[in-house]
Amino acid sequence: MLDVCLLGTGGMMPLPRRALTALMVRYNGSSLLIDCGEGTQVAIREKGWSVNPIDTICFTHYHGDHIGGLPGLLLSMGNAERTGPLTMIGPKGLKKVVNALRIIAPGLPFEINFVELNENVFNMELSGLMIEAFRVDHSVPCYGYSIVVPRKGRFSVESAKELGLPINLWNPLQKGNTVEFEGKLYTPDMVLGPERKGIKLTYCTDTRPADIIALKAADADLFICEGMYGEKDKLAKAKENKHMTFYEAAELAKRANVKKMWLTHYSPSLVKPEQYMDDVRAVFSDAECGKDRKSVTLDFED
Amino acid sequence: MLDVCLLGTGGMMPLPRRALTALMVRYNGSSLLIDCGEGTQVAIREKGWSVNPIDTICFTHYHGDHIGGLPGLLLSMGNAERTGPLTMIGPKGLKKVVNALRIIAPGLPFEINFVELNENVFNMELSGLMIEAFRVDHSVPCYGYSIVVPRKGRFSVESAKELGLPINLWNPLQKGNTVEFEGKLYTPDMVLGPERKGIKLTYCTDTRPADIIALKAADADLFICEGMYGEKDKLAKAKENKHMTFYEAAELAKRANVKKMWLTHYSPSLVKPEQYMDDVRAVFSDAECGKDRKSVTLDFED
Repeated sequence: MLDVCLLGTGGMMPLPRRALTALMVRYNGSSLLIDCGEGTQVAIREKGWSVNPIDTICFTHYHGDHIGGLPGLLLSMGNAERTGPLTMIGPKGLKKVVNALRIIAPGLPFEINFVELNENVFNMELSGLMIEAFRVDHSVPCYGYSIVVPRKGRFSVESAKELGLPINLWNPLQKGNTVEFEGKLYTPDMVLGPERKGIKLTYCTDTRPADIIALKAADADLFICEGMYGEKDKLAKAKENKHMTFYEAAELAKRANVKKMWLTHYSPSLVKPEQYMDDVRAVFSDAECGKDRKSVTLDFED
Repeated sequence: MLDVCLLGTGGMMPLPRRALTALMVRYNGSSLLIDCGEGTQVAIREKGWSVNPIDTICFTHYHGDHIGGLPGLLLSMGNAERTGPLTMIGPKGLKKVVNALRIIAPGLPFEINFVELNENVFNMELSGLMIEAFRVDHSVPCYGYSIVVPRKGRFSVESAKELGLPINLWNPLQKGNTVEFEGKLYTPDMVLGPERKGIKLTYCTDTRPADIIALKAADADLFICEGMYGEKDKLAKAKENKHMTFYEAAELAKRANVKKMWLTHYSPSLVKPEQYMDDVRAVFSDAECGKDRKSVTLDFED
C-alpha cells in the first residue's frame, strides 16, 4: 500500500488557495517527498501528515517554486526531533543549492546524504521503494520520478512441498530470506514465481512532452503530470516556457497506457482547471484535475 | 495616513491557520515590509495587497521563520515586473544571507540596496517614512523598528500675512518648499510652527523585555510586540528562549505609554491566545490579540 498525497497544484508562486506543487508518499512508516516549494510544510500539516518520517526528498529542479520551502521544512523536522539521516536526490548542484539555503537552517540534529543526478536515467532503492529518476526537457536540468513498490512472485506451495520444506520456513522464504534446512540452503527463487507488477507512481512537472516520459510512465497506476495551461491557444506559450498544455499531458498519459492521470502545476492565471476537462478526457479518459491535498491509496492489483 | 497590516502572528513555523509574523505598511503609494517568513507573500495576496510597491524590507534577524520567504517574494516581485530599486535593512550579515538565499532567485529585474545595522540605534528616512532601528535582546543580533510619519508644524496665517506673502505661495511653503518673492527667499520655518507629533508605529519580536524597547516605543500610536507565551508558568521558558510572555509585553506597553498594543509571534503550542487577555489587560488595558491580517489605518491626532 502506497499512500499518495498531491500537496499542492500551483506553479510559479504560492496562492492563497493553491499551494505549490509537491508530492508526498507514505510507505511502511517512511515518507518520501518530491519537491518542497514555499508552503509545502504547511500543506503537510494541513493534510494531517507529519514531517518527521520524511526519509527522502527528491527534487525535480531548483527553481524557487520547487525548493523555496526547504529551509523551513528542515527546521521543522529538526524541531520535531528527527535524528535519522535524510537522503536528498536531485540534479547536479544539489549540495551547493541546499547548503546555500541552509544559511538560515544551519544546525540540524540529523545528517543529510546527497545523491546528485548526472545520468539521464538513475535508479536506486530507498526504504523499500524503487526510485527511478529520468531527465526531462525544461529550461534547466530537470527530472521526473517513478516510485515503485516492488512485488515478489507468487509463492508456490507445490514447489515448497516438493522440496520437502516444513511450513514454518515458508514465510521467511516468502519474505525474501534464505533459510537453512537439514544442512542445505534454500533461496526465495526456489519457491517464488516471477516478480509481479508492483505499485507504480510517476510524477513529472516542468517539462515539454518527451518520449522518455511516456517510456518511464509506462503502465503506471497513477501518473501525475504538469499541465501549466488549459487554454488550447497557449500552446506557443507552453513551448516557450518549456511547459505543457493539459492536452499534451493527456497525450503522454495515453501513450504510456497509465491507469489514471492527475494534472497539476497550474499557471497562476488558470483559475478553473475543471472547465477544460471534457476536452482533456477526449484525449485520455482517465484524466482528473489535481487538487490541493488530493489523495489516494494505491494497492497491488488483484 | 499609514495603513498597517499584521500579516501573520505565528512564531517558529508556519501553521495552516497562522502565518508567520510579519508586518506590512503602506504610505503614500509605497510599501514597507518587516520580516518575510515562509508564506509572507501568500499572506500579502490573501490581504489583497500587492508585492509590487514594496520599496523597503526591514529584517529583525535571520532566523528562518523571519526570512525564509524572501526568495519567493523577490521572484514574485520580479514576475510583477518591478524595476525600481529595493532597500533592505537588517543586522550585520544581511548581504551575505540574502545573497546565499538568492541561489534560487538569481536574476531579478531590480536592484537591491543593503543597509547593514552595526549601531545599537540607527535612523534613516525612506519614501517619506522615518525608520528607527534599535537593538533588542535575542539569542542572535536582533532589532526592533519604529516607523514614523513626521508631521510638520502648523501653518501660521498670521506669519504669512505679516511677511506680506501672496496666498499662492502659502501652499508650497506649507509643503516644505522654499519660495522666492520680490527677490527675497522665504523658508518654511518662517511660516510653520514647531514640528508636531506624527504617526508612530513600533514593532518588536524575538526579544526579552529591555529598557530600550520602552524608550523607543514611547507614545507610539500602535505597539506590535511579541508574546510567545500566554501561560504564566512559561516565564522560565521565555527567558531561556529569549522571548516574552504576554504580561512582559504588557508591562513594556505600559512603561512606553503607547496608545494600543497588539500581541503577536505566538508559540505553535499556543492555540487560543484570547484566553489570556483578561489578565493581560489587567496590566495594560489597551492590549489586543494580534490576528492574521489584522489591520488599521493610523492617522494624525486631531
